[in-house]
Formats: sequence, structure tokens, C-alpha cells
Amino acid sequence: MIHLKAIGKIMGALLFLIGVLMLPAASISWIYREDSSPIMISAAISLFIGMALFFSFSKQDEFVRKREGYLIVALSWIFMTGFGMLPFILSKEITSVSDALFETMSGLTTTGASILTDIEAMPKGLLFWRSMTQWIGGLGIIVLTVAIFPLLGIGGIELFVAESPGPTSDKVHPRISETAKRLWYVYGGLTALAAILYWAGGMTLYDAVNHALTTLATGGFSTKNASMAYYDAYPFIQYTAVVFMFLAGTNFTLIYFGLVGKFSRILKSDEFKSYALAVVMLSFILFVPIYAQSDYGWEFSLRKAMFQVVSLITTTGFVSDDYTQYGQGVAFICFMLLFLGASAGSTAGGIKFVRHATFLKNTWLEFKRIVHPRAVVPLIINGERVTGRIINNIMNFLLIYLITFVVGSLVISLMGYDFATSLGAVATCLGNVGPAIGDVGPVDNFAFFSPQAKVMLSFLMLLGRLELFTILILFTPFFWRAN
Amino acid sequence: MIHLKAIGKIMGALLFLIGVLMLPAASISWIYREDSSPIMISAAISLFIGMALFFSFSKQDEFVRKREGYLIVALSWIFMTGFGMLPFILSKEITSVSDALFETMSGLTTTGASILTDIEAMPKGLLFWRSMTQWIGGLGIIVLTVAIFPLLGIGGIELFVAESPGPTSDKVHPRISETAKRLWYVYGGLTALAAILYWAGGMTLYDAVNHALTTLATGGFSTKNASMAYYDAYPFIQYTAVVFMFLAGTNFTLIYFGLVGKFSRILKSDEFKSYALAVVMLSFILFVPIYAQSDYGWEFSLRKAMFQVVSLITTTGFVSDDYTQYGQGVAFICFMLLFLGASAGSTAGGIKFVRHATFLKNTWLEFKRIVHPRAVVPLIINGERVTGRIINNIMNFLLIYLITFVVGSLVISLMGYDFATSLGAVATCLGNVGPAIGDVGPVDNFAFFSPQAKVMLSFLMLLGRLELFTILILFTPFFWRAN
Repeated sequence: MIHLKAIGKIMGALLFLIGVLMLPAASISWIYREDSSPIMISAAISLFIGMALFFSFSKQDEFVRKREGYLIVALSWIFMTGFGMLPFILSKEITSVSDALFETMSGLTTTGASILTDIEAMPKGLLFWRSMTQWIGGLGIIVLTVAIFPLLGIGGIELFVAESPGPTSDKVHPRISETAKRLWYVYGGLTALAAILYWAGGMTLYDAVNHALTTLATGGFSTKNASMAYYDAYPFIQYTAVVFMFLAGTNFTLIYFGLVGKFSRILKSDEFKSYALAVVMLSFILFVPIYAQSDYGWEFSLRKAMFQVVSLITTTGFVSDDYTQYGQGVAFICFMLLFLGASAGSTAGGIKFVRHATFLKNTWLEFKRIVHPRAVVPLIINGERVTGRIINNIMNFLLIYLITFVVGSLVISLMGYDFATSLGAVATCLGNVGPAIGDVGPVDNFAFFSPQAKVMLSFLMLLGRLELFTILILFTPFFWRAN
Repeated sequence: MIHLKAIGKIMGALLFLIGVLMLPAASISWIYREDSSPIMISAAISLFIGMALFFSFSKQDEFVRKREGYLIVALSWIFMTGFGMLPFILSKEITSVSDALFETMSGLTTTGASILTDIEAMPKGLLFWRSMTQWIGGLGIIVLTVAIFPLLGIGGIELFVAESPGPTSDKVHPRISETAKRLWYVYGGLTALAAILYWAGGMTLYDAVNHALTTLATGGFSTKNASMAYYDAYPFIQYTAVVFMFLAGTNFTLIYFGLVGKFSRILKSDEFKSYALAVVMLSFILFVPIYAQSDYGWEFSLRKAMFQVVSLITTTGFVSDDYTQYGQGVAFICFMLLFLGASAGSTAGGIKFVRHATFLKNTWLEFKRIVHPRAVVPLIINGERVTGRIINNIMNFLLIYLITFVVGSLVISLMGYDFATSLGAVATCLGNVGPAIGDVGPVDNFAFFSPQAKVMLSFLMLLGRLELFTILILFTPFFWRAN
């Protein structure tokens, strides 16, 4: 039996929070003398229903266990999306429900794919809410991985395995709620710092705050139609974006260790090392064709290359250049970047380096095991031995990810979209990135998709953001059968 | 230390055999009053060098172990290709070395992709040799999986794991060389039967024999420019092709059991059941758009659908219809079929159903394990429990297959080919199928690729045919380091 009452209470608290978080956007509407009523009404609805749900169930009513945990995770994003789209719909700035769903899901899953064809024409309050959805999504991911579950009274460890992307949970501090608090400080502090630097670099305060929110969330919603290409003449802004996207894709635990001076922990992390190495190498690989085929100088070419690589790897999805103009090969490389994902424990979506590193290292050792069948060949990641159970789990994740990608692409292509567009749209939504290839390249948007395709792609964003298993398990009989 | 002398002796025997197998083609040249000297000279060269190698090394010179086994497998295909391309080059019918390499590798790996733009203009003797390369390739796969390794004096079991596609080796008969002999009878008998039926259905004897050779090898080389679409007015021929392609994609051990009346063994095979079910279901799925979008009647539509599905799933690659004309969705489905592969223990290439079945069943059970972490949830395939080691091995294979596919596609796309063409060409070569999508669709050929791309694609055919590990292990230091 699923204990629905406890779930109802938590959803109530969450909706209340969403209502509160709409208030800054409403204020911005008011400051810019826009009609703030759509956001105010949305906030009021969320607050009211949230409180109603919360107070309908007494605290000790029911207890929450593993199965409820999965439902809570899935329902949290669904509820947030359902109420988060209200400002768009009530303002009539986005008239179709599938568009509003897509845009809000893209926000809360920190994807950044957009159906807006003219972003700059949107009211500032609404755009701010759009940026906020990404920041909330990023916050949610941190909460999920370390804080929500222990708060619910469950050990957190079992669910951590399902929700947390990596094989190891490198504890910052023994008490998990303490850990969460510290990571929120990191997240909030870096967001504030990014906003200040963007502002100092020449953005308006409004644009600086918006971009800071979506940078740290590895979201990629911009307030400019040209995305970050708008700031081509502001190297400081673009370099700031590169640095903070990179940080947002780093395990926040490692950033915390860095801040308190424990650099040895950073150097011990195979994930961080492979992530950093990939960023550097791929930047140089992309630099060559950009420099050769454009009239940009070397600095500008390198900046373009770095920006695109970091943006795609961290699944942020800001754009400062159309990478599809440098030939089939460069477009293919960028398509492949959609499958990397940055670090576990960051706000980045996608597969993540720790999984890639584990799989690649294990495969390499597999050949050794074939040649020397009787030798014991342990797999060491981050200085610790990885068990067969976890290797199995990771390979399973990789394969399910690829199957989801293939099946998703098939469904989209059956709706009549071409090969590159189908594969690109699904890869970027599942990986929570934003731009892709084909008709959804870096200078395109998702407006032309049919409502069905938009719902499908929204679902894929959710799947990818919640690490597949959390959602897919709800579709198995094992989950629903009585214990 | 690698024992090269034993390898030399075996290569000698193999070249001698290749020389002998060229003689029928030379005879056909002679019968049709063509210039038979190119094939005769090729045969003479192969026979001479083969004998020279064979007699250079005495039988007890060196002993062969696991590592030599891998080298022998890889070198066998490389030697066969090197000498098998001689007739094409000496006749000057194929003038470039990369073209001859591609065509011969496509034959010996039973792929069926071709660089010929006008097949019917080729001399009959040479076309026969082209068909023979596929039949020899199919023979080689049977020999490899059950006979060569024990003949070499190694147990065969360890290598069987690497070479044989499936997790279980369902023994026909305790003595392996006896097993091989029986499977050759199955292979040879079915080839003869197919030739007779093709002939009875209206093909010329020459065409019947050629098509029979390439059908049982799941090769797909045709003597007609239109491939099997040439026989659209001959339903009997096309149904014969469907049945024999299906049989060629069935585990030959099961066919043997069927012939001796042990049908229970067939019904116990999860691989056969999933393979047969996939063929039936996919035929109906493809039937719908073909029937809806063409003016074919229902019988002709169903025949077209069945033919394409069986041809792609069994990695044969005969074509009786252009499946890319029915919209993006149908083309995408056909693209996905390139990743199925039929049964382990057949002549089909590709991933194979036993791997798909094991992975899918294991993934499904993984969800059960997540919900009930303390329950023991064994994975049963073909009525037997599959160990964690084998599950691991299969997932590794699947992931390496996909990585090879992605890296291969990247390389081809960097050479300047478009997205669909790159992915299609690599998928079809790696899976040993033949036709694909993009510029290498069912009515196209591979002539337009650059020499570099042809060499790359030939290498991918070899990788796919030898189950990846056999070739890839040669590129690891573990293999070459002294024990």
C-alpha cells in the first residue's frame, strides 16, 4: 500500500514554497510597471492549495518509506510544473498548454530548451519567473540528493543510490541536513557572485540576475534572443559565464572542500579530473575548425570554442555561436557532447562523468581480465574500489539511457520530423541541455513541434532530470504490487 | 611471447583453402567463355603461398594458446580478404585497392554493402567469386564458433566466450568437431535446397546458386542491380528468400534439433522465440505504412514488409523495396533494425537477440531488485540461470558496440558526410547488414565514399563480424605484454 497522506502533506509544503518563490517575480512585474496580476494570482493559487494540502494531513498521520520516496520525487516535479506554468498561461503570453508545459518543464528540469520565438518581447516579470524555474530546479536537485530524504525520516541511503548520479556519496559532513545547508550556501553564494560579475561586466542588473540564476542551475534560459552571443563584445561576461558554468557542473561537495582549503579531495576525484580534462581537450579540438573557418581572431575563436564546449558539457545550453556552421564533423562532436553531462552532485543533467569514467575504466580492465582470467583486477574510482553491483548498476543506467534515447527518437521521427532533428531534440531534452542539431540547432527553438511532440519531449526532460529509474520504476508492476 | 610459427602454419592452410575455393569461380568464367585467367592466377598465388607457408613450419613446432587464438581469428579474415580481392584487381573490374578491399571485406564478413554501380555488367565468374566470399565468410563463422579452436589444441571454451555471441553454448553433440561437421551439413544442405527452390521458382541456375550462397551466409550480395526487387513478379522466389534468410538467422544447432525431431529444444530457446516474435510483429508494423502509401495489394505489401524486416534483422541485406520512401518513421524503424542481428550460432552478424533478451530481461528484473533489495531475483534465459559475470559481459559488449558505432560515425562525419549517411553507413557495416539510410539507402551503393572512408568502413565490418573483442583486444597492452 502506498501511503498517500504523507505524500499529500509534502506536496502541500512544496506548493506553498512555489507560491512564495513566485513573489520576487511578481515584484519585478510591479517594479517594471507591468501587469503583475497573472503572477500574483498564480502565487495565491499555489499558496492556497499548498496550505490546504499541508494542513489536511497531520504530521504523524502516515510514515514515508522507499516507495513513497519515489512517488514524492516524481510528483514534486509534476506538481511544480503544473503550478509553475500558471503565470505563463494566466498572462496569455503563452497561450497553448503544451507550450506552457514544455517551457516550465524545461525550466524546472534545468534544460533550457524554449518554445519562445521572441524572448525579448516577454514581460520582465514573466521572464524572471522563467529564470527562477531553472534556479528552483537546480535547488531541487541539491535538495533531493542530500536533504529531502533524511527530512522525510527515511535513511536516505537507498534512495540516494537511485537519485544520486554517482557511485559514491562523498560526505561533506556526517549530518546530512547540515550537508544540504552547506551546499545551498555554495549554490546561493555562487549565484550571487555570478550576478555581481555579470553586472560588473556590463549587463543590466536585471539581465545579470537572470543569467546568474540560469547559469548556476546549468539551465541556460537567457533574457536575450541571441542568448549569450548578445555579449560577444563583452569578453568579461562570456569568460565569467564559462567559469561559472564550469563550477555549476562541478560536484558542489568538491567546491565546498576547495573553499575550506582541502584541495587534496579535489585532486583525488577521478570525475573532476576527467571532467576538467574533457573541457580543456574538447575546447582545443573545437578551436581548430572555428579558427580555420571564421574571421575571428584566436582569442575570440578560443572563447567561442570554450564557451560552446563548457555550455554543452555542463548541460547549460547557453549559446554564443552557431556550431552547426563549421561542417558535419563539428556538428557531430557537439551532438555527442549532449551525452556527457558534467559531475554527479552538481546541478548538471545528463549521464555524468563518473558514469562514463566507471564504464570506460571497467571496459579497459575487462580486456585485462580476458587475457588474465584468473587475475583479480579491481576497479578503482576516486581512490575507492567499486563493487560489481555498482558497475552493473551504472552499465544498466547507460543502456537504459541509450534505449530511452532511441525509443524517444523513434517516436519523434514517427511524428514526421527528420532524422537529425529527432535525434537532436531527444538527446538535448533527455540530457537537459537545450540546443541540439537539425531543426533544433543553437539558433533555433522548439516552437514548431506539435503539441504531442512537446509533451513527449517534456516527459523526456523529466526522465533525464530524475535519473530515469525514479520515473521508470513507477511504470513497473513491482512498484505497485502490495508488499 | 606470441608463437608466430603456429599461426603461420594455419594461415598457410587457410590460403590453400581459399585458392581451392576460387576454382569453381574460375570454372564458371571458363563455362561462360570469359577470361578466366585473373581468377586462375589468383588461385595459383593463393595455393602457392599457402603451401609455402604451411610447409615452412612443422606441425609440432609451437603450441597455440588463447592469445594466439585471437591473432589467428583476426589474421584469418585479414589474410582471406587480402587474397580474396586478387580476382577483382587482376581482372581490372575493380581498379582501386580500397574498392576491392571494401567489396571483399563486405563479402567475407557477410555484410553485403557494395561499391559496384552496375553489378550486371560484371563477368559471371567474378560475380560468382563475389558470392562465394560471402558463403566462405558464413562457413568461417561456423568453423570459428565450434571447430577451429579445438582443432588448434586449445579448449575452445574461453575463446568461445569471446567469439561465440551467446551466453550459452547449447551443445549438439559432446565432441566439438562432430558438432561442426553437423552444422556444416545443415549449412551446405540448406544452401543446396535454397538453390533448387530459387531455380524452380524461375531464376536461372546461375542466379539461383549465387543467391543461395549469399542467402545462407546472411550476406545479401545479389547478381541483379535491383537486388531481389528484380523478382517482384516471382512471389515463390521472394517467399523462398524470406524463409531461408530466416533459417540462416536461426541458431544452426536449433535447426539440427528440428531436423532430428527434438522440437522441445526449439521451444525452450528464448532467443528463437524473441527472434521469431520480432520478425512477425515488425512485419505487421511495416505492412501498415506500405499498404497505406502504395498501390500494392495486401499480399504484395505484406511480402514487401516481411522481406525487408527479415532481410534487415538477419543482417542479410537483400532489398525488394525502398523502405526510405514511406516517411521518416519507417526509415527510422529500418535504421533501428540494423542493431538487432538474428541468433547466436547462425551466420547473422550484429548484436543478436540473445544479448538483447538478456539485457532487457535483466533490466526489467533490476527494477524488481530496487523495490525488493533483499530478494534473490535470478535471471533465467533458455531455462538456465545466467551468472552475473555473463550479464556483465553482455552489457559490456552492448556498450562497446554502441561506442564503436558512435566513434565510427564521428570519424565518417568528420570526413564530410551528412548525419544520416554517417550513422547509417556505420550501423550497417558494423552490423554486417548492407543497406542503410541517408545516401546509403536500399537503392544506393557505397561507391561515392572516399578511399579513407572505405577502409574505415571495412575495418568496422571486421570488428562487427568478429564480435568486437577479438579485434579490439589486439589494441590493448595486456595482449602484447609478456605473460
